[in-house]
Amino acid sequence: MRAKVTVLGLGPMGAALAGAFVDAGHRTTVWNRSPGKAGDLTARGAAESASAAEAVAGGTLVVVCLATYEAVHEVLGPLAGALTGRTVVNLTSGSPPQAHTAAGWAESRAVDYLDGVIMATPAGIGDPDSLLLFSGPRAVFDRVRGTLTALGDPVHLGADTALSSVYDTALLGLMWGTLTGWLHGVALIGADGPGGRVTATAYTDVADRWMRTVRAFMRAYAPHVDSGDYPGGEFTLRLHAMTIDILAHASQLRGVSQALPELFRDLTGRAIADGHGDDSYARLVEYLRSDPA
Amino acid sequence: MRAKVTVLGLGPMGAALAGAFVDAGHRTTVWNRSPGKAGDLTARGAAESASAAEAVAGGTLVVVCLATYEAVHEVLGPLAGALTGRTVVNLTSGSPPQAHTAAGWAESRAVDYLDGVIMATPAGIGDPDSLLLFSGPRAVFDRVRGTLTALGDPVHLGADTALSSVYDTALLGLMWGTLTGWLHGVALIGADGPGGRVTATAYTDVADRWMRTVRAFMRAYAPHVDSGDYPGGEFTLRLHAMTIDILAHASQLRGVSQALPELFRDLTGRAIADGHGDDSYARLVEYLRSDPA
Repeated sequence: MRAKVTVLGLGPMGAALAGAFVDAGHRTTVWNRSPGKAGDLTARGAAESASAAEAVAGGTLVVVCLATYEAVHEVLGPLAGALTGRTVVNLTSGSPPQAHTAAGWAESRAVDYLDGVIMATPAGIGDPDSLLLFSGPRAVFDRVRGTLTALGDPVHLGADTALSSVYDTALLGLMWGTLTGWLHGVALIGADGPGGRVTATAYTDVADRWMRTVRAFMRAYAPHVDSGDYPGGEFTLRLHAMTIDILAHASQLRGVSQALPELFRDLTGRAIADGHGDDSYARLVEYLRSDPA
Repeated sequence: MRAKVTVLGLGPMGAALAGAFVDAGHRTTVWNRSPGKAGDLTARGAAESASAAEAVAGGTLVVVCLATYEAVHEVLGPLAGALTGRTVVNLTSGSPPQAHTAAGWAESRAVDYLDGVIMATPAGIGDPDSLLLFSGPRAVFDRVRGTLTALGDPVHLGADTALSSVYDTALLGLMWGTLTGWLHGVALIGADGPGGRVTATAYTDVADRWMRTVRAFMRAYAPHVDSGDYPGGEFTLRLHAMTIDILAHASQLRGVSQALPELFRDLTGRAIADGHGDDSYARLVEYLRSDPA
């Protein structure tokens, strides 16, 4: 269905969002504080407004993508009346408290409000695999969900508007853990030694298939954390520790950093010393929670 | 096609392998040094042999899953004549040099030989997603590949028999990096703070979708490593470093370990200090290679 969408802010991300709305056939109005950013978009069919007030009047869904939350309040503050009855989706990067403050402001003005985070680069906007996280009232999300699919894969996290920001940080931590573990393997397998020097591309073809199993571990271990019960089954912390030693030794032989193996060894070693050697890897969450470092 | 398969060694993994061959309809002969391990398998249709020599005579494909490479040499050594013309697939856990030694022995006896690693627990055997890694002559792999699909997803890594062992270690490193990064996020998002306490299960539903993007980064970054050219595009190390600081700060606020954020901060900080701030995350491979720690 053709929606009326307004995009406030035409930095690289805002411009990508507006472009994806245009491509999906939505009536798209754009505005940027400094003019001259909409050239390509208007050529593709977007309408450019000279003021934020005029832009907001053109859309029932108002997508905000500015540099800071301060800029959001500066731009939206004077428009409260015009925004009543419309839906504001704020994709500006910010902290959990900033999301709460913006949601409180919107509620006091009877403006429907969602906070959101885009887990993609501007080039990824429009890719159906690109994850978009939203928090705020479920009913508001359900109303705009269809329109937001123009941007990627929209997911509703819950009613608390701080959730998208907290998920953002947690998911980036998962990304760095994965990418650093992957690069460690790339360094190991690309070094001189028995087996020869494997290219990163050849290794990554196999690593990508392996991730199916790693993801299955995550899904299987999540209930361990929620229940506080960590059955090790056939893959106990003791077995992990033995193979972590092999990783540490192989890394040393091939001149690869000990930083990651040491971190894994420290966590598993402490859990085993506490008598948790028969538990699953998920037990380590308790050592990440309480680490005093 | 119905193959004649022999499985030597009926520990938990060997028994799972034999069971999967039986389930796939292959004529399966089993042997274990200490008797009494085949009960369930013979009930399902496997033939049990009283000696390794008799067992080997029953199969054209001989799958070996013993405790150590020493045990492999002890069992196979006297059978060299009987093994000539058959294919030995050795799934015993060992080091790259041990794989080379076994392959050399097999070659000198005109025995076709593959070294292999099972990237699954016994319960995962037979799951088409379970990754099985093989190294050795491609033609030998191609001949037994069809039969090995009974166990999971068989992948040929290359002719050098040490490759399966090296991949094993590298892929486990990737697993620990991913699982530890995931648990860090679980700890962060499950702690008290704005957004409330999210369950590991709810978080992991979203994390699992996010992994599509993380895997896309791995695939996009692999050619950076192979070319030594790391274009940062829209997601530079400088941007990573800014968001790593947010992870570190959020972790501190919520009482979560600084170990992973510190490790990411150290690697990115060193690369940026060396003038690589506009590069992609893949540049960090150079800091994992040369780390003196």
